[in-house]
Amino acid sequence: MLFFENDYGHGAHPAVLRRLCETNLVPQPGYGEDAYSRHARALLREACRAPEADVFFLAGGTQVNAVAIGGLLRPWEGVVSAATGHINAHEAGAVEFTGHKVLALPQRHGKLEPKTLRAALADFYDDPNHEHMVFPGMVYLSHPTEYGTLYTRAELTELADICKSCRVPLYMDGARLAYALAADTDVTLPDIARLCDVFTVGGTKCGALCGEALVFPKGAPERFLTLIKQRGALLAKGRLVGAQFEALFEDGLYFEIGKTAVALAMELRKGLLERGFALFEDSPTNQQFPVVPNALLPELSKRVAYSFWEKRGADASVIRLATSWATAPEDVEALFKVLDNRPSGG
Amino acid sequence: MLFFENDYGHGAHPAVLRRLCETNLVPQPGYGEDAYSRHARALLREACRAPEADVFFLAGGTQVNAVAIGGLLRPWEGVVSAATGHINAHEAGAVEFTGHKVLALPQRHGKLEPKTLRAALADFYDDPNHEHMVFPGMVYLSHPTEYGTLYTRAELTELADICKSCRVPLYMDGARLAYALAADTDVTLPDIARLCDVFTVGGTKCGALCGEALVFPKGAPERFLTLIKQRGALLAKGRLVGAQFEALFEDGLYFEIGKTAVALAMELRKGLLERGFALFEDSPTNQQFPVVPNALLPELSKRVAYSFWEKRGADASVIRLATSWATAPEDVEALFKVLDNRPSGG
Amino acid sequence: MLFFENDYGHGAHPAVLRRLCETNLVPQPGYGEDAYSRHARALLREACRAPEADVFFLAGGTQVNAVAIGGLLRPWEGVVSAATGHINAHEAGAVEFTGHKVLALPQRHGKLEPKTLRAALADFYDDPNHEHMVFPGMVYLSHPTEYGTLYTRAELTELADICKSCRVPLYMDGARLAYALAADTDVTLPDIARLCDVFTVGGTKCGALCGEALVFPKGAPERFLTLIKQRGALLAKGRLVGAQFEALFEDGLYFEIGKTAVALAMELRKGLLERGFALFEDSPTNQQFPVVPNALLPELSKRVAYSFWEKRGADASVIRLATSWATAPEDVEALFKVLDNRPSGG
Amino acid sequence: MLFFENDYGHGAHPAVLRRLCETNLVPQPGYGEDAYSRHARALLREACRAPEADVFFLAGGTQVNAVAIGGLLRPWEGVVSAATGHINAHEAGAVEFTGHKVLALPQRHGKLEPKTLRAALADFYDDPNHEHMVFPGMVYLSHPTEYGTLYTRAELTELADICKSCRVPLYMDGARLAYALAADTDVTLPDIARLCDVFTVGGTKCGALCGEALVFPKGAPERFLTLIKQRGALLAKGRLVGAQFEALFEDGLYFEIGKTAVALAMELRKGLLERGFALFEDSPTNQQFPVVPNALLPELSKRVAYSFWEKRGADASVIRLATSWATAPEDVEALFKVLDNRPSGG
Repeated sequence: MLFFENDYGHGAHPAVLRRLCETNLVPQPGYGEDAYSRHARALLREACRAPEADVFFLAGGTQVNAVAIGGLLRPWEGVVSAATGHINAHEAGAVEFTGHKVLALPQRHGKLEPKTLRAALADFYDDPNHEHMVFPGMVYLSHPTEYGTLYTRAELTELADICKSCRVPLYMDGARLAYALAADTDVTLPDIARLCDVFTVGGTKCGALCGEALVFPKGAPERFLTLIKQRGALLAKGRLVGAQFEALFEDGLYFEIGKTAVALAMELRKGLLERGFALFEDSPTNQQFPVVPNALLPELSKRVAYSFWEKRGADASVIRLATSWATAPEDVEALFKVLDNRPSGG
Repeated sequence: MLFFENDYGHGAHPAVLRRLCETNLVPQPGYGEDAYSRHARALLREACRAPEADVFFLAGGTQVNAVAIGGLLRPWEGVVSAATGHINAHEAGAVEFTGHKVLALPQRHGKLEPKTLRAALADFYDDPNHEHMVFPGMVYLSHPTEYGTLYTRAELTELADICKSCRVPLYMDGARLAYALAADTDVTLPDIARLCDVFTVGGTKCGALCGEALVFPKGAPERFLTLIKQRGALLAKGRLVGAQFEALFEDGLYFEIGKTAVALAMELRKGLLERGFALFEDSPTNQQFPVVPNALLPELSKRVAYSFWEKRGADASVIRLATSWATAPEDVEALFKVLDNRPSGG
Repeated sequence: MLFFENDYGHGAHPAVLRRLCETNLVPQPGYGEDAYSRHARALLREACRAPEADVFFLAGGTQVNAVAIGGLLRPWEGVVSAATGHINAHEAGAVEFTGHKVLALPQRHGKLEPKTLRAALADFYDDPNHEHMVFPGMVYLSHPTEYGTLYTRAELTELADICKSCRVPLYMDGARLAYALAADTDVTLPDIARLCDVFTVGGTKCGALCGEALVFPKGAPERFLTLIKQRGALLAKGRLVGAQFEALFEDGLYFEIGKTAVALAMELRKGLLERGFALFEDSPTNQQFPVVPNALLPELSKRVAYSFWEKRGADASVIRLATSWATAPEDVEALFKVLDNRPSGG
Repeated sequence: MLFFENDYGHGAHPAVLRRLCETNLVPQPGYGEDAYSRHARALLREACRAPEADVFFLAGGTQVNAVAIGGLLRPWEGVVSAATGHINAHEAGAVEFTGHKVLALPQRHGKLEPKTLRAALADFYDDPNHEHMVFPGMVYLSHPTEYGTLYTRAELTELADICKSCRVPLYMDGARLAYALAADTDVTLPDIARLCDVFTVGGTKCGALCGEALVFPKGAPERFLTLIKQRGALLAKGRLVGAQFEALFEDGLYFEIGKTAVALAMELRKGLLERGFALFEDSPTNQQFPVVPNALLPELSKRVAYSFWEKRGADASVIRLATSWATAPEDVEALFKVLDNRPSGG
C-alpha cells in the first residue's frame, strides 16, 4: 500500500528519534527547563533572527492554537479567521471552549485576503452597535493554508499592517510550516518572525513524534507558563519536545524535511496534470488536491492510502495526496503507475 | 550528582524507547486508530479484567484530569477532592478553567477518608439552600496520594459505595499508579477497575516519554473522542502513546518498573530511619519525605538532586526523594554515604 | 420627537406597572417561589396548553439565550443558527462564552430554511471527519426574526421534524413573541409549545420592565434552577418578573399588546409603500425596515427617533421603525406628515 | 405572620416604586444610556466622592460578582476570599463558571483578616512551585459579611495596603451596603471608594426591586460594557435600575433605608440578649443570628418567618432574623411577645 494519506502517518524522522535515544539516560529538570529545550529555544531564536523571542513547546496543534488564541484574547474579543481555517472547521470548537468566538470571513484559495480583512474591520467599527458585538481581537492565518496554498510576503506585510493599525496581534498557525518555507515562496522564517506577533513552528506534521513550538518574537505575555499549565498543555517531560526541536533545528533538518517533501509533491503535481487530472487548488506545498472520477476510487483505495476531501459534483471527488520525509521517489512513481493502469471508466 | 528529584527526570524506560524505534517506519492511521493503540487498549482491558473498558491515550497528567473531570461533570456540579489533591493545589486551576469548582475537604495522610466524604455529602444535602450551591458531582482520589500514601481496598470499597449511593462517579488519578500497584497493598488493578468509574494509568511518571491512559471500565460516555479533541488533547500521532503503553503492558513491564522503584524506595526508607531521620508521611511507594535539618541542605544540594517540599519549623525542612526505573541500587548506597559523611551540624 | 426607535424605550405597560404597585407590600419568598411567579407559571402553562411545562423567569434576552443554549448543549455540541440570528451577531459572544460554537448557516428573509438545515446536517454527518468537528446539538430560531419576519406553521413543523430525526432540541427565541402571535400568521402559542423543545416568551420588548419566560413544554432538565443560579441569572426578587408575567397573561394583555403594535405597524407599512418607500424585508410584525435616501436622514433625525440598520448602496440606508404598546395612532400620522413634507431632494 | 426571613421579601421602597411610575412614559435610549442612569451615576460619584468613577447597573448580586471577578481576573489568576464568602459558598460556582478558582482562606467573624491574607500571599510567593498554582489575582470582601459583621477602617486600610503591594485589586461585595453604612462604624462610602478598586452598592437587598451598582472609583477597564453584554448582564431597559438608583441616592434614601433597618435590628439584638438568647455572631447590622432551642422552632414557625442558618449541637439552631425598610417597630415588639409567650420547654 502506497502511503499518501497525510504527513503524520509515520513515526519521527530518524535523526529526531536518534536524538531521543542519545539523550534518554541523562537526567534533566522538568517542565521545559531541561538543557535540550533551552538549546532548542536558542536555535529557534537564531533561525527566526529574533533574539528576544520567547518559545514554548507544546504537544499538539489544536492544543497550541487554543492556548495561544484563548490565552491572548481579552474576554470581549474573538479571533478573525478564514472560514476554512483549521480553528473554524476542524478543531471541534476548541477556541470556543476557551470562551471566544471565531469570526469567520470568506476565503480565496484558502487565504484570508487583506481586502477582505480590511473591509470586515471597517464594517465592524462603522456599525453603531459594535459595542454589542464580538470585537476582532486577533487575526489567525494558517500557512500553508488548509488547501496547501501560501501567503506572499506582500500579502503578509499588508495583513500585518492592518493588524498593527487596529492593534490586534497577527497569529500564524504553522502546523506545516516546514513545507511553506521549502516551497517556491518569498516568505522566510525571519519574515514571519518580523511580521507576526506570535506563530507556531509545527513538529508533528513535519517530522517529529509530537510537538509544536509557540514563538513570541517580541517576548511572551506575563505568566504564560502558568497559563499553559492551566490549560493542561505543560509537559512534565518537556525534554521530549525540546530534544526533538533541537534535532530539527540543529543542522537545518527542518528545512531539509520540507524540501524533500515539497520536491516530491511537485513531481506529483506535474504527473497529475500530465495525466489530465484537474487540481482543486494549485498548491505549491506538500499537499496536492486532485479531482478524481469517483469510478477510480475503489481501485485506488486498494493500492493507495489517500484522504477523501470533498465531493465534486455527482461523479468526481477531491482527494488529498500528501508527501512527507517518509515519502520515497519510488512511491511517486508507483502511484503514477497505479493511475496509468486505471480502467478506462476511471 | 545523584538524581532523586523526581520520577520523570529521565527519558523513557529503554524497552519503551525501543518500541518507538521498532515501529517508527510503519505507516499508521492517526488519532488513536493505529494498531499499537488498539493493541495497547486490549492489553489494558486484560490487565484490568475489564473487557468492556474504553481507553483513551492522552499526553499529560493535568490534561487528562481536566478532560476527565470537566468532561464528566454536569454544569452545576463540582468535584470533591482532598485539599491536598493535585487538582486542588498544583494544576494551576485547570479544573476551574473548565468551569467547575473543586470542593476541597480535609485530608488525613493525603487521603480523603470515607467518613469525611460521608459527612460532607450529608451536610450538603441537609442544607436547605443546597440548590444555591455547587453539587458534588464526582469524587477525585489520587493513588498514590501526593504524599505517596495508599488507600486500602476497604477504604476504596467504602468510598465507592458512598459514591454509588449518591450516584456520582469515583475518579482515580493514577499518575503514579505503577508504584501503587507494586507496593505492599491489597489493591490490584482489577480492584481499581471494579471500584472506580474512571481512572488513569500514568505513563509519564512511570517510565514513558509521555502519556496517560484514561480508562472507563464500564465504557466511555458518548462522543468522548470529540470532547478530547475539543480540549486540545487528541494527539495526531496517537501511535506515540499507544506504542509506549503497548510496551508497558505487554510483558508486565509496568509492574516491573513499579517493583524496582518501590524496592529501592523501601531501602531508602529503611536507611533514612536508621540514620535518625523522621518521615513527614510514612509512604509505602516510590516517594519518600524525610525531615532534614536545614543546615544539611547546602551540602546535600551539591551532591543530590532532591525536591524541597515544605518548611518544618524554623530549623528543618521536608524534602522529597523519589526513585524510578532509572534509579540504581548504587545510587541509594551513594546517597547514604553522603548522609553519613554529613557535617555534625547537619 | 416621535419615538419609533425600538420597542423597549418606555417603561412598562401601565397594567404591568400597576400590578407591581398592588403587590409591593406583600412579603413573599425569594428566588421564584413567590405566589405571583407560581401563578404566572400556571397562566403560561394554560396559554401554551402545556400542562407539564416548566417555566423559569429570567431578567434579559441575551441572558436567557445563553443560559438555555449553554445549559442544554453537551460539551461537544454547538448551536445551529441563521447567520443573522441574534445570538450570532448581536450578543457579544455570549453563547461562545459558555464554551459553545454558533454554527451559522445562510438565511433567507432572516429565516433558517428547512432545506438549508437539512443539507447542513447531512453534510455534517456525511463528512468522514465529523468527529473532529462541532456537533450540531440544538437549532436556534428567532420568531419574529431579526428582520421582523415569521416562520409559517408548515416551516416550523418541518424544522421540528428535522430536529427530532437528529435528536437535537429546537429552541425558539421569542424576545418579541407578542408581535409574532398578533400578526397575520397560522402559528399559535400552543403550536410553538408543541413544536419546540424550549422557547422564550419575551417580556422586555413586549411591555414589561424586564423579564423573559423560559418555557420547557415537556419539563425542564434536572437541576436547572441551580444552573440558572450558577450563571448569575436567578433573581432574588423573583416576584419582580413573576408579577409582571402574571399581569401580562392574566387577561390576554400580552396578546393585546401585540395586536396594538402590529396594527399600527401595518398602518405604517401601508403608508410607507404608498409613499414610494421600498421595504428591505416585508415584515408582518412590529418592526418595519424602509429603505430611505440618505439625504432624508438629517431632517428625519430631528423629528423622529429611529434605528439605523445598514447602508444600502451609496445613497440610501435601511432604517428600522418599531411600534409598541406605547405607540399611538397619532404618532404614525405624525410620522407620515414628516415624510410628506420632506424636501424634494430627500 | 411576622416577616423577618430576609431583607428582600417585599417589593421596593415606596419612593423607589414611585420613581418608576413617574418616569414610565418618557421614552429613553436603552442599555444604560437613559437620563435616569446617567443621573444616578452622577449621584453615586458624588456620594462616593469619586469624580472619576465609572458605574454600571446590573440586575443581581451573583451576576455582578461573577461579571466583576471573572471580568477582571487574568486567565491564570483566582480570587482570594474568606471560606464563608458568598462567592465561595452560595453562588453555585458562578465564579468558577467563568474559569477562575476561589482561593478560600479561613475567616474570623466572617471576615478575612489582614494577617491571614498576608500569610497566604507570602506562602504563595515563597513556594518554589507557585508557577504551577493559581495566582492570587484579586481579594474579595463582603461588607457586611455573611454574618452581618463589618470591617473597621483600620482593617480595610491594611487589606488595601496588602493588595497594593501585590498589585491585585481589592473588591468589595456590598450587596447589603446600606446596612454597613448605617451601622456603628468608622467606614464611610468615600472610604470604600478610596480603599477599594471596585465595589458594589447593593439595591436588591436595600430597597430596590432589583439592581446592583458596580463602581470602579478610578475608572473601568477597557470595553467593560461589551464584557457585561457578553455575560448576559446588560439590561435593554437600563432605565429600570437607573431610575431606582436615582431615587435611592437623590435625597439620601439609601442611607435612610439602612438607618431604619439597623435601628430596628439593634432593638431586636437588645431584646434577644435580654431574653437570654446567645448570638452566634455579634452583628451590628440588619441581620441577627440568635441561637434558639430546637424545641422553640415549631411554635416560632407558626408566627414568624425566619431563616434557618445552621445546627448548633444537638438541641439548638442558629436562625437569622433580618430587618429591612419594610419592618415596622411593631413587628419587633410582636416578635418579642411571641418569644415571651414561648412554652417553658422552648
